[in-house]
Amino acid sequence: MQSTEIRLKSRPEGVPTAANFNVATVDLPAPGEGQVLVRNRFMSVDPYMRGRMYDRPSYVPPFQIGEALQGHAVGEVVESHAEGFAPGDLVSSMFGWREAYVVAPEAFAQAPALFSKLPHIPGVSPSAFLGVLGMPGLTAYVGLLEIGQPKEGETVFVSGGAGAVGSLVAQIAKIKGCTVVASAGTDEKCAWLRSAGVDHAINYKAGDLLGQVQAAAPKGIDVYFDNVGGEHLEVAIETARVGARFAECGMIAQYNATDPVPGPRNMIQIVGKSLKIQGFIVYNYAHLQPQFTADVGRWIGEGRIKWKETVKDGIASAPAAFAGLFDGSNTGKMVVKL
Amino acid sequence: MQSTEIRLKSRPEGVPTAANFNVATVDLPAPGEGQVLVRNRFMSVDPYMRGRMYDRPSYVPPFQIGEALQGHAVGEVVESHAEGFAPGDLVSSMFGWREAYVVAPEAFAQAPALFSKLPHIPGVSPSAFLGVLGMPGLTAYVGLLEIGQPKEGETVFVSGGAGAVGSLVAQIAKIKGCTVVASAGTDEKCAWLRSAGVDHAINYKAGDLLGQVQAAAPKGIDVYFDNVGGEHLEVAIETARVGARFAECGMIAQYNATDPVPGPRNMIQIVGKSLKIQGFIVYNYAHLQPQFTADVGRWIGEGRIKWKETVKDGIASAPAAFAGLFDGSNTGKMVVKL
Repeated sequence: MQSTEIRLKSRPEGVPTAANFNVATVDLPAPGEGQVLVRNRFMSVDPYMRGRMYDRPSYVPPFQIGEALQGHAVGEVVESHAEGFAPGDLVSSMFGWREAYVVAPEAFAQAPALFSKLPHIPGVSPSAFLGVLGMPGLTAYVGLLEIGQPKEGETVFVSGGAGAVGSLVAQIAKIKGCTVVASAGTDEKCAWLRSAGVDHAINYKAGDLLGQVQAAAPKGIDVYFDNVGGEHLEVAIETARVGARFAECGMIAQYNATDPVPGPRNMIQIVGKSLKIQGFIVYNYAHLQPQFTADVGRWIGEGRIKWKETVKDGIASAPAAFAGLFDGSNTGKMVVKL
Repeated sequence: MQSTEIRLKSRPEGVPTAANFNVATVDLPAPGEGQVLVRNRFMSVDPYMRGRMYDRPSYVPPFQIGEALQGHAVGEVVESHAEGFAPGDLVSSMFGWREAYVVAPEAFAQAPALFSKLPHIPGVSPSAFLGVLGMPGLTAYVGLLEIGQPKEGETVFVSGGAGAVGSLVAQIAKIKGCTVVASAGTDEKCAWLRSAGVDHAINYKAGDLLGQVQAAAPKGIDVYFDNVGGEHLEVAIETARVGARFAECGMIAQYNATDPVPGPRNMIQIVGKSLKIQGFIVYNYAHLQPQFTADVGRWIGEGRIKWKETVKDGIASAPAAFAGLFDGSNTGKMVVKL
């Protein structure tokens, strides 16, 4: 069997383009004893992957030139010689950016984040395991609840509010009894956020972000969930109330920067307002996965969580789907259907 | 009796100068029933006072034009009509920037930070209650131990290391079994820090602060105690290890800025390194005062804490002493002897 895969051809300077990627087709071996053949049905493109395209030490090793990229994928077992796996089973893995692969499940018994079986949930697309029920969902859950620690009646501000992470942050904050201010880059995204219960959806491209946040939260914000960095972070510091907590999840505004980006000009307020600004990596919160799945699964069942997906078609569209993350062309989770 | 006092004449633009202050002499009333007359022996000048010279909302109200400034002072009761106070008693108060004052101690029974009796400690100058045993000492103690949470064997970096706060941070970190890197602005200050047990004292004015910190802490830093902001904060982020904690105590490099100061250019590392950057105000940790006094008092008794004072003479020298905080003319606590 053959599998088409996407390889890193060169390290991007600035925003990634098609020229940074190769499309290649490889022959897969027939699955042997203890192995399964998996055909991916959906693969994920996520902002954090941009970091892995730099050759630098980080919490995950850099992608290597000439090798297939990696990332979350949801696939279906098509042939199994491994106990506990049957054709038709859904599996989650880090073997994205390719159509199919052969692995021995036993090798990942202690690493379920890399490969594990998924439940079938009636009425929920398997792609949800790449978004609201997957890594972005867990990121939203732990960042908001563990770092942000919102209390009922407080005001939560989330940037990148219409993205896979941000839209779940906004809705969990509502479930927790908070007033929610969310920013997004188009009026359509803002309208969708309002339909999902967000109190104040702000189009940051309309200008005067500070004024818009001040108008939405005249008493200031208690929690800021940062997906964006840049001006948003400065505005969050400016509008923060004393004792506010910042969950620093990402700074997509800076991922493609080729020169150093100056930080907020109002850092001094960190002292006077006793702010806590804390970065986090979702992989350090894997122990909360069962609680996350239980809570978010229940909220989905109760109809309290909405989500959107932007679906691109075919493995060859993956590089463009990835680049699209940085110009806001997705609402909700960006996935590629294979 | 007369008392000479320093008043705020105008709000400083940039570094404060003599022109921003008035010297005035007032007649004090004779102390009545329940009142004491106190003659100040030492008054404190502290960087945080610069913030109170701006007319803006903050955790303490701004100083008012035409009124005497306020600040910590240690004085001696010279006449008492209040129970529990006798001539010769030492008192701590916020009635600095003046030679003498009359108050009713009972009015401050619930606010010991504003006025309270001090013990006489043999061999320790009363001025120590403005520094190592006073607010700067408590600031060092809570910032390092509550926010920084250093563990034995970790590396602590402190800026403004030869100041009243920084020099105590450095020495408490040594007592807690840490490797200590401290920055200061002259070779003399660095030599003194080494004599107080600091492992690596860095003269930041010698240039290449980043290279100096990297050489001193090749594996990176676990805790940063920030008195300075600016380049120091950027270097601390750059050299931070995963999970490092930053106690944001002050940003003296920015207190006199007339234009917004751009923040660190490497903020994005807050995410990847899971940094926690937390501002704090010592007044929110008043409940730790007894524990602080017990610990630091014991360490002083054991000869494990050294401190220096820079003493200016006479009430008229107070404005210049205050301005001197911003050009590094003090080693250790800057006080004015009255």
